[in-house]
Order: sequence, then C-alpha cells, then structure tokens
Amino acid sequence: MTPSPVVGRILDALREVVGAQPVGLHEPNFSGNEWAYLKDCLDSTFVSSVGRYVDRFEADLAAFTGSGHAVAVVNGTAALHIALKLAGVEPGDEVLIPALTFVATANAVAYCGATPHLVDSEENTLGMDPQALRGYLRDMTEMRGGVCVNRETGRVIRAMVPMHTFGHPVDMDGILALSRDFRIAVVEDATESLGSTIQGRHAGTFGRMGVLSFNGNKVITTGGGGAILTDDAALARHAKHLTTTAKVPHRWAYFHDEIGYNYRMPNINAALGCAQLEQLPGFIASKRSLFARYRAAFSGISQARIFEEPAGSQSNYWLQTLVLDEANSGLRDELLQSTNDAGLMTRPIWELMSRLPPYQACPRMPLPVAESLVRRVVNLPSSVALATD
Amino acid sequence: MTPSPVVGRILDALREVVGAQPVGLHEPNFSGNEWAYLKDCLDSTFVSSVGRYVDRFEADLAAFTGSGHAVAVVNGTAALHIALKLAGVEPGDEVLIPALTFVATANAVAYCGATPHLVDSEENTLGMDPQALRGYLRDMTEMRGGVCVNRETGRVIRAMVPMHTFGHPVDMDGILALSRDFRIAVVEDATESLGSTIQGRHAGTFGRMGVLSFNGNKVITTGGGGAILTDDAALARHAKHLTTTAKVPHRWAYFHDEIGYNYRMPNINAALGCAQLEQLPGFIASKRSLFARYRAAFSGISQARIFEEPAGSQSNYWLQTLVLDEANSGLRDELLQSTNDAGLMTRPIWELMSRLPPYQACPRMPLPVAESLVRRVVNLPSSVALATD
Repeated sequence: MTPSPVVGRILDALREVVGAQPVGLHEPNFSGNEWAYLKDCLDSTFVSSVGRYVDRFEADLAAFTGSGHAVAVVNGTAALHIALKLAGVEPGDEVLIPALTFVATANAVAYCGATPHLVDSEENTLGMDPQALRGYLRDMTEMRGGVCVNRETGRVIRAMVPMHTFGHPVDMDGILALSRDFRIAVVEDATESLGSTIQGRHAGTFGRMGVLSFNGNKVITTGGGGAILTDDAALARHAKHLTTTAKVPHRWAYFHDEIGYNYRMPNINAALGCAQLEQLPGFIASKRSLFARYRAAFSGISQARIFEEPAGSQSNYWLQTLVLDEANSGLRDELLQSTNDAGLMTRPIWELMSRLPPYQACPRMPLPVAESLVRRVVNLPSSVALATD
Repeated sequence: MTPSPVVGRILDALREVVGAQPVGLHEPNFSGNEWAYLKDCLDSTFVSSVGRYVDRFEADLAAFTGSGHAVAVVNGTAALHIALKLAGVEPGDEVLIPALTFVATANAVAYCGATPHLVDSEENTLGMDPQALRGYLRDMTEMRGGVCVNRETGRVIRAMVPMHTFGHPVDMDGILALSRDFRIAVVEDATESLGSTIQGRHAGTFGRMGVLSFNGNKVITTGGGGAILTDDAALARHAKHLTTTAKVPHRWAYFHDEIGYNYRMPNINAALGCAQLEQLPGFIASKRSLFARYRAAFSGISQARIFEEPAGSQSNYWLQTLVLDEANSGLRDELLQSTNDAGLMTRPIWELMSRLPPYQACPRMPLPVAESLVRRVVNLPSSVALATD
C-alpha cells in the first residue's frame, strides 16, 4: 500500500535522521563502568539488599538532582505508591492525575485505596493544565476543615501528581500555586524526566516528593528501578523504612512496626545505575542533539511539528515526539503502521485513563486537549546511539 | 563475660563446624555462569523487561520444580500478593497464615485488603499444624453458600498460606485435607524451600499456586526476585498479565484492562537466576552435608538439637536451625549475643505476627507451640561455602 503523501514525507524525514536500518524506540547504552561495577558486585557477593551501590546510587542521585535525599526502590510504580502514602493519601481520598499518563500513575493511586481524578493537559507542555484545573477546582470543590473536598463525591482531594511527559517539564509554578491555594500536596511524577530542569532546578524537586524511574526504556536504566526524591529528612527516613518491610533496625531481631513493602532496589541493579548515572550528562547532550536533527529534518513538513521543550525549561528529550496538526490526526494510525512495518519503531501516546476499564468511572474534568493529543502524538526512535550515526 | 556452660558448649560445637573466622548467616555463591550471562545481558542491551533470560528462567524453574508454569516476578512478596489475588482473596476476607513466619506473608494478605488469621505451628515441621487447625476451624467456622465463614467475625476465610519454614516442608497432606473439607484455597509459601520435596514432589506444587523467593539470602539469588508456580495455564497467564501492568498485548497501543502491577523481574536479574539455578543441586548437596556436620558436632549437647527434615520429605536446609529445649530457652538471647559478638552470625526465628503492631489485633487460634518455638529457635551460619572448608 502506498502511504498517503504526508505519511510518505514523514517517513522520508524519519529515515533522514535514523537511516534505513531498523531502529528501536529507545535502547539503553552501556558504554561506561557497567561491567566493572557488576563484576564488583558478584565478586563481593553483595548482589542483594546489603551493599554499597545502593547507598552510592542514592547519594549520586541526590547530588545530581540537587534533592536533599533520594531513596532507591524497585521501580517507579513502587516509588509513586510510597510517595502517595507518605503524602497522606488514604482509602477514600481522591488524587488529581493527568488523564494522559502511563497507567502506573493511576495504579499507584488505586494501591492506596484512593480514586484518581483526571485532569486535562496543556498543548505546550503535554502535562497537567494548571489554569484549566484552577477554574475546575474553584467550581467543584470547597475547603472543609482545612482540606479540599470534592463537592460532588464528598471525598477529600488529598494530592496531585503532575507528570513531566516524555521529559518535558510541566508548568510547576502553576501547579505549586494550586497546591498552596487549595491545600493539595504535590507528588511530582518525574519518572520520565531525570535530567530535565525548570529554571535550572531539577524536575522532581518542586513537590513534597518526586519520583524517578530507571526502567529499561528510560534515559538511564537499572534493569528495573525507581527512586523517591525529597528534601525532608524525616520523609526520606520513613520512605526507606516503608520500602524495606518496616523492620526496626536491630542486629538480629525481626520487629516490624507497620505494614511495610519489599520495595528496596537490589544492589546489583544499583550498581548498573551508578555506572549509568555517570554517563547521563553525555546521554542528555546526545538526546538534545537528536532533537535538533529531527527538528531540522521535519522543518519542511507543515502538517506536523517536532515537540520542543517548554520555555524556561530544559528537557532530557527522553522520547522524541511528533505532533500532527488536528487536520491530519486521522493519519496517526497509518503513520504508526507504516513506520513499524518499516522497522522504525514508533508508538502513540498512552490511552487516556478515562478510557481504561479500571478507571473509566473515575471523576474527571473536561479533557478536550488530552483527547486531541491522543489523536496526534507519535513518539519517534529516541536512542542515545542515534545522535551520532 | 564468661558464657554459661551450655552456651559455651554450643559455641565450641559451632566453631568446630564453621571455624574461628567470622562467618555470615547465609552468603550467596557465584561460581557458575553468572558473569557470562550478565555480560550477555549487557552486550545485548536487554537488561530490562524484554529479553530471553526471563523466559528461560521461567522455563528452567518449571522444569526444576515439575510445575506446569512459573511466572518470574520482582520478589517473593509480590508473588504472594498476586497469588492471593488470583486465589480470590478480596477486601474483607480472612486468610489463614502461620503466626510464625516472615512478615511478608502477613503483608501480602494486607495488600489484598484482607485480614491475616494466625495459626499455630507444629514442633516437628516448624510450620502450620493442620491437626490443631482442624479442631479450631470445626469450632469456629461454618459453611455458608459453599464458603467457610468465621462465625465470630462473619468474614469469609478465603485462603490459607502454609509456609515451609527454613526449607522444611510442612504437612501438606494435612493441609490439603483441610482445604478440601473446609473449601479454603491453598497458596503455598515456598519462598524458603526451593529444592525441597515431599515424597519426591517439589514444595510449592501442592497448592493451587506456590510462591518462590530469590532474595539475596535465599538458597539461590537473583538480587531480588520471586516466582509464582501453578499447573493451571490460565492462572499462569493471568499472573503474567497482572504482574506486567495488565497491558493487553499490541505492537504499540497502551490498553490496560484491569488494575495491574509493575512486578515483572528484570532480565538482568533473571540472567543471574539462570546461572544460579544451574548450580542448585550442588548447593543443596552442600547444605545437606553442612547439616550432617552440625548434627555430628552438636550430638553431645543434650540441651539443644539440630533441626532435621520431617519424615518423608527432603529439605533444602536453607537455614540451619538449632532448637533449645524448653528448660534452656532462657539462654536464647545470651546465645545470640555471644555468637554475634564472636562474628558468628546467628539469628532468632521471627517475632510472632501476633506481637507486631500492624497484626496484633488479628484473629488467632491459641499459639502455644509457636510461642515456645520463638523462645527456642536460633539459626546458625548456613552458607554453601561452609560445607567444604
């Protein structure tokens, strides 16, 4: 089947950047000390919970992000779950999350026994729209006893989870103002934005807590892993306690003082993370240069644009993003089909949470922008190695 | 301080087996293909969810245990959580678990929104006592609409989780008879018993599902990891689905049809597991020979015995176990103190679940044997490497 002219031009531009060979969406890059650190782990036999790489990875993450503390955990979902618990989310609460996010954001809310409340997106950040959200909250909530209550459901809106989509920072000024005005705690979902900054400050350090992910497809990987960032030493200690079965430290006794989780990151995964983090500045430079090449290659295509970091922020450009204009949104599936058939791996943005069976009954504000973005966004091959072919 | 005579004799016997140098409780052993498989992982860049080691580890586990299917997950706690969900445990249910177990058994029940109901132990297995439990269930439950209901709380007793303590198989005949008679599903907590068998059949394959762990201190390790065993292909498929965010397979679309979990085992951890599993028969032979050396060294000490596998079963002897007689149970803490001060790492059995703050209000049967065992059990250094010094 011959592709339609616009899709044909997009395929040509894509090949101009990534070449004719098959390419994945996002492949990790192990060109640093990965070997050495893994071997050290095996030689020391400290592959599991005890071992210096977990401590070092946490210290390195705190230093890199400028966060007071980092607590390494088994993945980003676990980090979100514990951060929400520590933000005070309880069964029966509501938590504001973007309708347009990876399902883990919603699942973490559900694990707390709480209900996601879905928020619309902004076209220029792909994240939560604080301005639209302000009007919505003004209309549908009221303060009762110092907490924000959804008038319709009677439930407390305890927290909100802005997510920095594909590494592009959300409008944190707007989010933080909402947090103050409506007394809603902020847990920042920075699972896609390690290395992204807003006015020089690292994503994930604006909220009460922030959450990172080091899944295999992320900007750096630990196989599977995540972290909780916070400036609050007591919160960090509690996060460590909750993620290590809530065992009270003792030379031999097994006393657990609350319901804890087995969410610690194994030392062997942390070793990989230490090696990866050393290379992160180079990875981000590569990804930014890949963005520039995509932008140049697509400059002649008026029906779509390569998504660029919002003003005032620096993005890690985790996943390169093509946004079709509304008139050409009908081409999304043809584009996905053609590129994947050609071995050029692309993907759409996520399905809206409001369309997934477990979350379709959740409360939500009108979602016109999120609904439009779902029709128009396609992620392009984004591996670090593509920057320099 | 001079140790009391009995503790002095125990220390001497211990040194006879493990030597004078400091020794850990249970250190992993990496003398096989660990490095080759990890290197292969890095070279292929498949460290995360995609990769052949997860598939291979699952196939190897199924073959080794004789289970129809094995689903690798991030740790034993996650495996228990999902197995309980798949056994039908719902918020408001009760689940029978041993009072004497690692806290993860109780936590997994709590994650389901259910309540642990604590069961006493048997002196000769260290696990659930099916005979005492039968009398207790007869008195305090009744069948309503085909399910077993706790008459006092009105809650359904949906499942029971026998645990094979330190690798020693529990009386599964007795447990399975209870399961049939009272219509209570069995999820076998085999987190400590990889390589243990009952009449030649592997622990963890008797219940509807069984659960393994590969934590750093287990008989084999993946850094952190676990698995669900089942003969039921549909249950295995559902376990895989639930542990991989419940994403419906598709080349690019993100459709999740229920609340799922990020519980998959990363490929890099599975690679370690493949190498470890190859060595398991040798590890178990070493651990059985270490048991024989302990038994010989302690044969002259009448105040304590080295715990031996129950009749009809083969134990992996994960942790070597000393059981003080009741008259000398007052020496436990002195023994723990003396051995750990001398660099010979020992530990008591767990605190009873009924004494932990999150579970002290849980329903329970009388626990005389479990209470006695807590006073009397001490685990001794158990590393594979100790077998051959």
